[in-house]
Amino acid sequence: MTDSPTGSATADLSEASSAMDDPAYRAAVVDLLGAIAYGEISAFERLAEDAKLAPGLEDKVALATLAAGQLDQVAALRRRLEELGADPFEAMTPFRKPIEDFHRHTAPSDWWEGLVKAYVGDGIAHDFYREIAAFLDPETRDLVIATLGDTGHADFVVERLRAAFAVDRQLSGRLALWGRRLMGEALTQAQRVAAERDALAALIAGGVDRPGLDLVAVGKMFSRMTERHAARMTTLGLAH
Amino acid sequence: MTDSPTGSATADLSEASSAMDDPAYRAAVVDLLGAIAYGEISAFERLAEDAKLAPGLEDKVALATLAAGQLDQVAALRRRLEELGADPFEAMTPFRKPIEDFHRHTAPSDWWEGLVKAYVGDGIAHDFYREIAAFLDPETRDLVIATLGDTGHADFVVERLRAAFAVDRQLSGRLALWGRRLMGEALTQAQRVAAERDALAALIAGGVDRPGLDLVAVGKMFSRMTERHAARMTTLGLAH
Repeated sequence: MTDSPTGSATADLSEASSAMDDPAYRAAVVDLLGAIAYGEISAFERLAEDAKLAPGLEDKVALATLAAGQLDQVAALRRRLEELGADPFEAMTPFRKPIEDFHRHTAPSDWWEGLVKAYVGDGIAHDFYREIAAFLDPETRDLVIATLGDTGHADFVVERLRAAFAVDRQLSGRLALWGRRLMGEALTQAQRVAAERDALAALIAGGVDRPGLDLVAVGKMFSRMTERHAARMTTLGLAH
Repeated sequence: MTDSPTGSATADLSEASSAMDDPAYRAAVVDLLGAIAYGEISAFERLAEDAKLAPGLEDKVALATLAAGQLDQVAALRRRLEELGADPFEAMTPFRKPIEDFHRHTAPSDWWEGLVKAYVGDGIAHDFYREIAAFLDPETRDLVIATLGDTGHADFVVERLRAAFAVDRQLSGRLALWGRRLMGEALTQAQRVAAERDALAALIAGGVDRPGLDLVAVGKMFSRMTERHAARMTTLGLAH
């Protein structure tokens, strides 16, 4: 309940419970938390796998630590799903295929692609959570924001890539294309989810007594995400 | 410095620094911390891999969480190795081959073998650390004991296996043999390490002003470890 802009803890609580009285809103929250939880489990698996590509033990440990951090919030998401009367693993199931498809279509072919994916993929996911948090009751919002976690570990990605580009200029050209492909694939899967999960889509579109986004606003949201993606690519030295 | 049986923190500190003045002792501690750190990194990798064998998402998350926990203490071990003037990753290198050989020779062929290995392998490693902790200065001892971490997560292994044995009696026969193989392979690799790393072997044998173990005492240590292994097998329902 900290950092809530809407008032006291008591007000937040009643707001949360009244929001949950709306079955469509509750279904959307179950979907969202299920998607985030499966996304984190899947990110753990992929990063643990990609850590094998590390050129040395120190890099391997750095990526493995990023992987392990993905699981930090899974227990909290699971608890919240149970409180909402949902089976956590059933809630995750609809997101298994789009998330696995994303990873299958973006399997890194080497260590450098793995590093860019760890940084860029995490960034896209976090941007999306931050955007969607605006439509949530404060309690759910706090939980979603908590899953953003500590991104400090990712600093090593920036360092490693910048050092590599300094000695291999071709590498940055290849990885700039790779970064664009990651963003494209993320949008493809996100659209698929939006098309298939009515409750989630309705959450963004708004409800009778809940503000939502019209098409123009949705477009603006995606352009904000694209801008932030471009900023991350620049941070990595992958501006084009 | 808590739980130290030898006196005040100040006494411990001077004891630690005087122990480290002995180059042979310092080399042994560097070896030990390097071995533990590489063991944890390797355990992370293998458990993350074995989690793929899980029959369902809930089991996968449980084993992945065990995997992630293996990395908890790596940063502290690394810091301590640096304080001792050692390169942490060089310190781990001599243990890479025996530890990887252990894992290569004990690659689980299914989920159940993976579960038994997670529980039994962790148990053997922890027994060994606890035994060797008796020969260490208090500061190093506290660090080694901290790496034992929270074993509560492993409860799910016991539950899953006991439930599986209740419906499949043949499974327990197969896994009882598997448990014996795990212990045998662990001892084989431990002996190889003892034969190749003089400093570590000397730590257990003792020094001029440090108590050590004679052959009879080493034998007793191994029989204690064997007994604890048998107790764990009984806990799993794998007594024979």
